[in-house]
Amino acid sequence: MAKFSPPRGMRDFYPEDMKLRNHIFDAWRLASTASGFEQYDACVVESLELLQRKAGEEIVNQIYAFEDKSGRQLALRPEMPPTLARMIVARQGALQFPVKWFTIAQCFRYERMTRGRKREHYQWNLDIIDENSVSAEAEIIYTAINALRLMNIPDNAYRVRISNRTLLSELLSSLGIAQEFHPAIFMALDKKGKLPREEIEKLMLAENLDAEACSAAFDLMDITSLEDAAEIAGDDSPAVASLRKLFELLNDYGVAEQAVFDISVIRGLAYYTGIVFEAFDTKGEFRAIFGGGRYDGLLSAIGGKPASAVGMGFGDVVIGEIIEELKIEATSQNNLIAIGYMTDDERTMATRLASKLRAEGKSVTLQTRPSRAKAFFSFASARAAKAVYIGPDDRNSGKAFIKDLNTREEEMITLT
Amino acid sequence: MAKFSPPRGMRDFYPEDMKLRNHIFDAWRLASTASGFEQYDACVVESLELLQRKAGEEIVNQIYAFEDKSGRQLALRPEMPPTLARMIVARQGALQFPVKWFTIAQCFRYERMTRGRKREHYQWNLDIIDENSVSAEAEIIYTAINALRLMNIPDNAYRVRISNRTLLSELLSSLGIAQEFHPAIFMALDKKGKLPREEIEKLMLAENLDAEACSAAFDLMDITSLEDAAEIAGDDSPAVASLRKLFELLNDYGVAEQAVFDISVIRGLAYYTGIVFEAFDTKGEFRAIFGGGRYDGLLSAIGGKPASAVGMGFGDVVIGEIIEELKIEATSQNNLIAIGYMTDDERTMATRLASKLRAEGKSVTLQTRPSRAKAFFSFASARAAKAVYIGPDDRNSGKAFIKDLNTREEEMITLT
Repeated sequence: MAKFSPPRGMRDFYPEDMKLRNHIFDAWRLASTASGFEQYDACVVESLELLQRKAGEEIVNQIYAFEDKSGRQLALRPEMPPTLARMIVARQGALQFPVKWFTIAQCFRYERMTRGRKREHYQWNLDIIDENSVSAEAEIIYTAINALRLMNIPDNAYRVRISNRTLLSELLSSLGIAQEFHPAIFMALDKKGKLPREEIEKLMLAENLDAEACSAAFDLMDITSLEDAAEIAGDDSPAVASLRKLFELLNDYGVAEQAVFDISVIRGLAYYTGIVFEAFDTKGEFRAIFGGGRYDGLLSAIGGKPASAVGMGFGDVVIGEIIEELKIEATSQNNLIAIGYMTDDERTMATRLASKLRAEGKSVTLQTRPSRAKAFFSFASARAAKAVYIGPDDRNSGKAFIKDLNTREEEMITLT
Repeated sequence: MAKFSPPRGMRDFYPEDMKLRNHIFDAWRLASTASGFEQYDACVVESLELLQRKAGEEIVNQIYAFEDKSGRQLALRPEMPPTLARMIVARQGALQFPVKWFTIAQCFRYERMTRGRKREHYQWNLDIIDENSVSAEAEIIYTAINALRLMNIPDNAYRVRISNRTLLSELLSSLGIAQEFHPAIFMALDKKGKLPREEIEKLMLAENLDAEACSAAFDLMDITSLEDAAEIAGDDSPAVASLRKLFELLNDYGVAEQAVFDISVIRGLAYYTGIVFEAFDTKGEFRAIFGGGRYDGLLSAIGGKPASAVGMGFGDVVIGEIIEELKIEATSQNNLIAIGYMTDDERTMATRLASKLRAEGKSVTLQTRPSRAKAFFSFASARAAKAVYIGPDDRNSGKAFIKDLNTREEEMITLT
């Protein structure tokens, strides 16, 4: 059936697939509005130049780029932040800050196909623009956790690992490693768990770090608590203070149990400037559920006035796999009423009943043609919660029974 | 600000734009599920070959096509039916027919930019596959009308114009015009209202129709009632019978007032095979609100087993213009509660209150930083329905007031 498959890496959603997708999207939307985030959206087609200006090299190589019939260089966006930044900068003088926005956006990356990797996915984005305090990070992490709760994911099934790039920078400085080496060290250490130690050390040596500094940087990854980090960084470290404040706020939100300090969280992208976070399933079997952090340079990078920002991205693929692994039922109330009829003579009565029930806000599937009772109830049992079947006797009496397909209980209704 | 605009013809949706879009999308979804349609979706990227195999020439020239890094010929879909057909055919042996599906899909066409024309739009599609009787047309037309009602569009603001291509064929045959000329005449007559009569006649003459036949075909467009058409086509005409049955069913549905016979409705696309319909605003100021019809050849055209089908497409651009013209309020219940606090010392209390209210299902926007009462209430009045402001006195007493920003009424709440 390959000729009827979607293009490689792209997904079809049949009605049974939409059940899971709606379970995820509904939780995202509900958590967003519960926290007062406002929805925005933009077309999946963006200008290639905007996307290249901001993205890291790895992403640029994965962009689906093309030319339109007027020779414009366009692309399917690989991520939302450049578009968000463009929209904010276009109205930077008119918007009331801090801005709290969310979107559910399809994003495309051309990459090799492995488990859980598609070439397109949907990503929920939360962003708070122009808020310097860690209350922005706290609000975003809480809202993402609230979405997981709304999906019925148990609190102990995942952990949000939190660190601060500035802290790692302070620690490297305290080891005597000059600031200019820090970005390269971040990028190298971010590969921990993905590459063997020797490979990572090679990456650092290639950046002209000496072997001793390289080894010392690696040892920092063994720090397991914020207090241990504070001992090295010093008690007046602003990076430590911001992390302490964040954990305190997360306690106020009632989500302290799910949040842990983890110095190895760095995030690959070059644009993060402060606190960074990533959520993983507790067993560590899946890729990150969501991730984000503070990126204070994005607006100015594309030509806007500088403004601080915190953002988060949460894709639909990994969480979908976890929901299936945990055997969580996609919540969807089945209130559908099926209406069938024996002959063409009952069709008018059936149609009027369907219209009446729909006008009352009920969901009704009306058979498009007459059918035998057995065929109708087999159809109805497969998809509806209740069923009404109208035969000639019912038409004459003006009464029929609505049957609950689970309890088998019947209730009489009038048809006229 | 051009450099911060989206690519030409593409749309940004700021939060105030999402209000209108959600008003439209919510009505589409609600009408679909009320009528028992099941949701499906597919990636906006399709194989170019599939799209070309089915579409008319005009559409093929407007496709955004590109090549991926493996040399695959891909495209942004201009419409949903080829994708729907592919998905149905892939599971033709497993699905239970008739299938009733809906989707809200973004579609792209590269065309010249005029009023109400964008290069992308969202289109609601309803399709019923494998139902020969006009109950499929009736169910779809009713469901589209129900969506307009759910958007609060008055019944008298629009009309659904309905005809049958088979009827026009029967009438042309009765004038002695051979079947082979009918498709070209359909395409030419479909331009009525868009091109002057002479231009349309030229189109027909170019297809080797003689001037007399050409004029007779044109005169058919002056038929104004189904009964007049029946007099020419004959009382045993199957096309007339199917239209009569359809209007009878629409009466049963309670939407007869909005449905009218209009022989000039032909629909441009080549693939329609029977009843066709288009909805327009009553004043005739806008392009079509929705349109569709029976297309019995699509599945077999892409290699599936033959099956009858009826479909409808309803875009978001024209209805958005009509909603604005009619000054219809986009319904969105504003239940947002804003929470602010005077100093950092009240932040914990404010955060806990926000978490508690959110856990109860309420939407709460929590200030990310301390603010003065005046600044907070100015922020809150602009977006929330209720507001709580916590100062040091409230923190000490453990009580605060929640204020209704419309009625100015206050209610005391406990903070501990």
